[in-house]
Amino acid sequence: MRLSRYFLPVLRDVPKEAEIVSHRLMLRAGMIRQQASGLYSWLPLGYKVLMKVQKIIEEEQNRSGAIQLLMPTIQSADLWRESGRYDAYGKEMLRIEDRHEREFLYGPTNEEMITDIFRAYVKSYKDLPLNLYHIQWKFRDEVRPRFGTMRSREFLMKDAYSFDLTKEAAVEAYERMFVAYLRTYARMGLTAIPMRADTGPIGGDLSHEWIVLADTGESAVFCDRRLLDKSIPGSDTDFRGDLNPIFQDWTSLYAATEEMVDMAEYEAAVPEEFRVSARGIEVGHIFYFGTKYSEPMKATVTGPDGKEITVHMGSYGIGPTRLVPALIEAFHDDAGIVWPVSVAPFEAVLINLKAGDAACDAACNRLYDELNAAGIDMLYDDRDQGAGAKFTTADLIGIPYQIILGPRGLAAGEAEIKHRKTGERETLPIADAVARLKGLIEPQRKTDI
Amino acid sequence: MRLSRYFLPVLRDVPKEAEIVSHRLMLRAGMIRQQASGLYSWLPLGYKVLMKVQKIIEEEQNRSGAIQLLMPTIQSADLWRESGRYDAYGKEMLRIEDRHEREFLYGPTNEEMITDIFRAYVKSYKDLPLNLYHIQWKFRDEVRPRFGTMRSREFLMKDAYSFDLTKEAAVEAYERMFVAYLRTYARMGLTAIPMRADTGPIGGDLSHEWIVLADTGESAVFCDRRLLDKSIPGSDTDFRGDLNPIFQDWTSLYAATEEMVDMAEYEAAVPEEFRVSARGIEVGHIFYFGTKYSEPMKATVTGPDGKEITVHMGSYGIGPTRLVPALIEAFHDDAGIVWPVSVAPFEAVLINLKAGDAACDAACNRLYDELNAAGIDMLYDDRDQGAGAKFTTADLIGIPYQIILGPRGLAAGEAEIKHRKTGERETLPIADAVARLKGLIEPQRKTDI
Repeated sequence: MRLSRYFLPVLRDVPKEAEIVSHRLMLRAGMIRQQASGLYSWLPLGYKVLMKVQKIIEEEQNRSGAIQLLMPTIQSADLWRESGRYDAYGKEMLRIEDRHEREFLYGPTNEEMITDIFRAYVKSYKDLPLNLYHIQWKFRDEVRPRFGTMRSREFLMKDAYSFDLTKEAAVEAYERMFVAYLRTYARMGLTAIPMRADTGPIGGDLSHEWIVLADTGESAVFCDRRLLDKSIPGSDTDFRGDLNPIFQDWTSLYAATEEMVDMAEYEAAVPEEFRVSARGIEVGHIFYFGTKYSEPMKATVTGPDGKEITVHMGSYGIGPTRLVPALIEAFHDDAGIVWPVSVAPFEAVLINLKAGDAACDAACNRLYDELNAAGIDMLYDDRDQGAGAKFTTADLIGIPYQIILGPRGLAAGEAEIKHRKTGERETLPIADAVARLKGLIEPQRKTDI
Repeated sequence: MRLSRYFLPVLRDVPKEAEIVSHRLMLRAGMIRQQASGLYSWLPLGYKVLMKVQKIIEEEQNRSGAIQLLMPTIQSADLWRESGRYDAYGKEMLRIEDRHEREFLYGPTNEEMITDIFRAYVKSYKDLPLNLYHIQWKFRDEVRPRFGTMRSREFLMKDAYSFDLTKEAAVEAYERMFVAYLRTYARMGLTAIPMRADTGPIGGDLSHEWIVLADTGESAVFCDRRLLDKSIPGSDTDFRGDLNPIFQDWTSLYAATEEMVDMAEYEAAVPEEFRVSARGIEVGHIFYFGTKYSEPMKATVTGPDGKEITVHMGSYGIGPTRLVPALIEAFHDDAGIVWPVSVAPFEAVLINLKAGDAACDAACNRLYDELNAAGIDMLYDDRDQGAGAKFTTADLIGIPYQIILGPRGLAAGEAEIKHRKTGERETLPIADAVARLKGLIEPQRKTDI
């Protein structure tokens, strides 16, 4: 993408309303724009990151055997009366009347609707296990939305819902999602720790929150440092096999949020040198809740013996619009964002130091074409601006590699590559630049960890 | 995808509520489920088609130079008061109050919000031309939603918005979208004809509707038959060049919807043997509307001479959730849907005639792995069911090619390929099946027409 033809409204000033670094950087880098309290547009750079995050989530959901569909944002109030949640849910639910004065709501979550879909079609134990997921916009009318898209009112969520014949089978479904989540965050370069959590209004008796450690995190967390170094199950993991050993391995070490922590238990379980008491950002939440919805909503299947069995359910959420700021909280420095390659809006930016100079333009255009042809997701700063402004923008928006070419380098047949993360610079023959960048970028794409 | 692990709730009975064939087939093929009047879930098969349609739209929008972002579904009423449309829009607008009793609405379209984004960031004529688009869910509270997703209340729309310095430049932007639309429909296998149209509540003085001819179309249309055979601009089209000759070529032949037709003009312009009077389905609508929104909302840029210039705008819509049923209206027969390869939920289905038979399973599994490895988007009917039911399902859901393998063929070393569209069958050595299917499918993907 040529920057001269792109829409990247970078802000010079630090927006006053933004309290945390990710919110400031998303505004400054032209990723989002607030349209009203808790309502954001995702500008092109932000949208591109959001879609890269979404794609990783989809790939790992699909790998684990979950099947994607899409439910509407607007739901009938009657459906929520069946579960008893229409009255139980407070003012966070955005209630709507249509032109015929029928009651609707903007879905804050989808347990009721997916259970309705399940009961409409699935009749036999032979059709289980089943895990259906969607990625859709949701609305929660927070009293005080803040921190940008970290806690917005309209937000994107991946919700998966599992249906099983027994509690044991449902726990296996839970373990599959557990492993899928380990892989999902790791592919984004994040260290996310599963922690025992309260089940809250969704209910149930088995639940983990996925927490990224960050000073700006909204809750205190307590865990064993050895969790930070655990290896992630590979892409050859058999999701139809027994995942309990992986689950046991990860959950045997202590990790709990402040709502769940028992300090005596924590101190007994974790030797002092391994204790991590920190703040964390929730980036996912998984639940097993048994028959909480299937029972009132009569989601049953016929068992092998012909008897009706009420199915056991779980739900599994990840919020892409929250993950993007969480990634920035984890990956930034004083100059701006430092994207991991796998979720970067562009993998590299070509900086033309003297746009308008015929020889420099020709060399940059040629290099840009070659980099595109090599499959690198490129931004090309071809604007008629000074080098300083170009470097500042490239650093701010956090593109992992800058490849810099100007008249002096061109005369010497050399380009420069700057590594955004380390600040390291290397000078190399222009003819070697494509191969070098490919060699740097490809291993970091994490398409197959 | 193995059908035994998929979620494909095919219906045996023809649903009574469905008046048109696409609605009936989408329900029977397990593509959608009605959740409330005019509100649909997209079940996995339907969702997959919807995403293939969306991807083609995105690729052609990007090719033409439009830039993708995403605006929220919920908008502030104040924004719509600026353009005067908050009161002008009738009961079709879903109006909402939040917990603080502030007025919002579920966006039925986005001219106001995109104009707000534009005026917030774009200050100079140097930043033009600009075309920003998004694909987002919209809501129009129709009195009587019907025809399934053809006229639903919550629906998906691609909206592009162009911003230019002059009317002449805006018309060039219009021509770019015009050509992008020609390519978009053609890649889906559709013959969509641009017709002069009324501009309706969006306003403006240049507008085309894109019409697919179908007996179930909601409006009468009148056009020159020679439009049906025109060639489509190729992928080598230079979208930064002069597209006026293509625009002139397409618009020189008569085509108008019933709201716009002048019968005397039509008969004078079209020789009798070329006259087509038919019914059509609207699958897109493009508008040039000048300064209708930029003027009241003060979207201006500084011109070369330092003076403020009010920008000229256009908007360009395609509804993916309407395109899917329109495709089915165009492509079906008595046995079910007949998808073009480019938008088919799966490109081919492998039918195991004797699932449970060890030799047959082994041969089918091997073939399935090879077909996947060859990059063919495969469904594998590995269910323990009779051949008849499998053929019926494969025909109903419209997969372009069936590859059929059973014990008898296995003994002879042969598989059968059935072409869904023509009914043609061919028997060939199992070892040749992958290459043959690739040879059939690849030219029809239309990734590069």
